[in-house]
Amino acid sequence: MKTLPSLLLLSLAACASPLVANDSDAPHPAPGFAIVIHGGAGSPSRSMSAAERAAIVGGLEHALTLGRDALESGAGALEVVELVIRSLEDDPNFNSGRGAVYTAEERHELDASIMDGATLACGAVGGVTTVRHPITLARLVMTETRHVLFVAEGAEAFADTQPVERVDNSWFDTEPNRAYLHRVLEERRSAGLLDVTPAERSALDARAMARLAEEDAPASTFGTVGCAVLDGSGHLAAGTSTGGLTAKSFGRIGDSPIVGAGTYANDATCAVSATGVGEEFIRHGIARDISARMDYLGLDLDRAAAETMALLDEGVGGVVCVDHAGNITMNYNTTGMLRAAADAGGRFEVRIWEEVEDLD
Amino acid sequence: MKTLPSLLLLSLAACASPLVANDSDAPHPAPGFAIVIHGGAGSPSRSMSAAERAAIVGGLEHALTLGRDALESGAGALEVVELVIRSLEDDPNFNSGRGAVYTAEERHELDASIMDGATLACGAVGGVTTVRHPITLARLVMTETRHVLFVAEGAEAFADTQPVERVDNSWFDTEPNRAYLHRVLEERRSAGLLDVTPAERSALDARAMARLAEEDAPASTFGTVGCAVLDGSGHLAAGTSTGGLTAKSFGRIGDSPIVGAGTYANDATCAVSATGVGEEFIRHGIARDISARMDYLGLDLDRAAAETMALLDEGVGGVVCVDHAGNITMNYNTTGMLRAAADAGGRFEVRIWEEVEDLD
Repeated sequence: MKTLPSLLLLSLAACASPLVANDSDAPHPAPGFAIVIHGGAGSPSRSMSAAERAAIVGGLEHALTLGRDALESGAGALEVVELVIRSLEDDPNFNSGRGAVYTAEERHELDASIMDGATLACGAVGGVTTVRHPITLARLVMTETRHVLFVAEGAEAFADTQPVERVDNSWFDTEPNRAYLHRVLEERRSAGLLDVTPAERSALDARAMARLAEEDAPASTFGTVGCAVLDGSGHLAAGTSTGGLTAKSFGRIGDSPIVGAGTYANDATCAVSATGVGEEFIRHGIARDISARMDYLGLDLDRAAAETMALLDEGVGGVVCVDHAGNITMNYNTTGMLRAAADAGGRFEVRIWEEVEDLD
Repeated sequence: MKTLPSLLLLSLAACASPLVANDSDAPHPAPGFAIVIHGGAGSPSRSMSAAERAAIVGGLEHALTLGRDALESGAGALEVVELVIRSLEDDPNFNSGRGAVYTAEERHELDASIMDGATLACGAVGGVTTVRHPITLARLVMTETRHVLFVAEGAEAFADTQPVERVDNSWFDTEPNRAYLHRVLEERRSAGLLDVTPAERSALDARAMARLAEEDAPASTFGTVGCAVLDGSGHLAAGTSTGGLTAKSFGRIGDSPIVGAGTYANDATCAVSATGVGEEFIRHGIARDISARMDYLGLDLDRAAAETMALLDEGVGGVVCVDHAGNITMNYNTTGMLRAAADAGGRFEVRIWEEVEDLD
């Protein structure tokens, strides 16, 4: 149905706005496997230090290598998603696991979800505080219970029955994230946000956040990590893990643990992990909508992702996706998205902005 | 695009299975308004007492009257959804608010969500324990914060800042629900479910639940209440409120507070509220999928709801829906669904099974 010229026109259209990026060129189905990772979408500062940039690129490269090697060894999509996200959860440079940002109460609440495209089985946890690898707990919700989502103390109680590593909440403390929390709280205080109604606070807060976004927030505060995989057997899986928003109200749940919003996988269409302002991803059911546009409109992955992302305002976030044929799409409407992709055809790349990063 | 004969064939096809019900006949757009309500899908016992049946029918009739009268007076869709669900939350015969079932710990945890089809604004709460009307708290999340979902203690803390009525958790105690909890727990004990792994427990539990479903569970334990409305200005809204599953693990969140799964509204397509085994509604993104099939496949509401519900196994639950033209669809794959519908054309009916109930 789709001709090459129309795809080229689509690519040109996507390039028209500097804030709409869509990394893939023509479709390049990769027989074997494909893997795509994100480490959050936002406004990474072009003036970040070489050390910070190297740490981010190194973390993505390490996770991508783990995933690619496992896929080359025949690992299944679900295993690889968990493996890759555990690696990113242990890296303090990303806002998940170890690097989770701080809530307004100066604590950490973590969310994660995972989905198996072969069976549509899925599991998720929200607001966990003592689990080192929330993605593993999410997978156990999927495999060990008939439920999909456990939150807060209920998720902790479930963890008590499972073989997952527990840590004190202070294990997630990191100085850059703490310093950033204090800047956000100071911004709120100076804007008088403590003496206004919740609605006024929300509006002011959004403005304060926008101002802060202009400054040099640590890249680790952007979002979320996620991974979408096609394995050598043709199965898809996706997962997402996050520490949420800096200075969020406690008990706030974003899209990361919401199947269909932050995570979705279906062998018939695609696997998707999202990052950004979670509320917008829930409202529009972003991850599932990309699959629905492939399924019901017959769109290819690039086009489906572009149309779904067009539902969002600029600056809201991004998605990484892989389809059943091994095509990879990374689409974001922020100025950058930490991301990486590899496939059986030898593709292996890490990007923050448009350009491919140099790897060692 | 669609001819009357094809619609008739569709209706006949829908009637072929006794477990697939689709109440609407030919489309009958109602200029003005339309409202549809559910009080849970399940296996209501044909041998329920006349008093129990009268209480259920009376509760639905009362809520429907409130909603219809408000719509006739020009109320907006969102106001009506909240009004109707508050009425059902106060009725101990439905599993929401006052009649919320018991968790395994013999307490009550309530979930709710609401969505405005005009703006796609939405709000939800999960695991609240002291809020008399969770639907009202969900609406306040929507209007007073930039977030969509608050859970557990975080939702309680948000409630502390809002003008919502608070009650002790024991306010949700009702004797029929407590007796049913004890039967479920006894069934679990006799099946030896206390000495097995979570996975084994899940499997055994599903079987125990299936056995219990054959018996006379109070109708109040079925599910959930919900409402979908088209108002006289052409705006759609939907909401859902529940006490969850009897004997659920604490912290388990079903589909009711998940926008896109249990609740969805979009003025361009339809408004939907779901009830049933929440995990299946999350996995398939049921409420949003009905809208997507209308939008992307050009299906009418009946057909879209039927195709979406076909994703689910029999016995899983049901949906009530209204579209932008005032068509109403009530589709379930259980043996019954407590439900009611009215429109500006004079339709006013309450049903449990196929037949319309006698009203006073």
